[in-house]
Amino acid sequence: APMTGELRCQCLSTVSEVIQHKRIATVELIPEGPHCIHSEVIATLKNGIKSCLNPEAYWVKLIIRKIMNRFQGSS
Amino acid sequence: APMTGELRCQCLSTVSEVIQHKRIATVELIPEGPHCIHSEVIATLKNGIKSCLNPEAYWVKLIIRKIMNRFQGSS
Repeated sequence: APMTGELRCQCLSTVSEVIQHKRIATVELIPEGPHCIHSEVIATLKNGIKSCLNPEAYWVKLIIRKIMNRFQGSS
Repeated sequence: APMTGELRCQCLSTVSEVIQHKRIATVELIPEGPHCIHSEVIATLKNGIKSCLNPEAYWVKLIIRKIMNRFQGSS
């Protein structure tokens, strides 16, 4: 179960409108588990608002790929 | 800047050893921004420990892909 103590799915539905990459402060991926039968993707925007994203949506995969590609190894 | 108020990079280095998918409670992706010149990936394990992951490592990309593929649309 996620460490936040949530013993259930955190998203009832996911947003359909595209959120621009630059509005996003963090993206949290929560793997499925005993607490929830599917994985969840929760974006926290720079204005503090949290949005549940649909991992199957193309624009969501693009945002995650963008974040992953912007890493210059520091180790 | 990430909502946690961190005005700098949160990871000094990244773990090299592979973390098993089932030990992970959440994965947080933080896009680069004024606060940090590169994106960061922080896993919170089920035991509460936080680890900085290297987004370029194959096993990290695999974990993120696994999480993304475990979503049965509920919207």
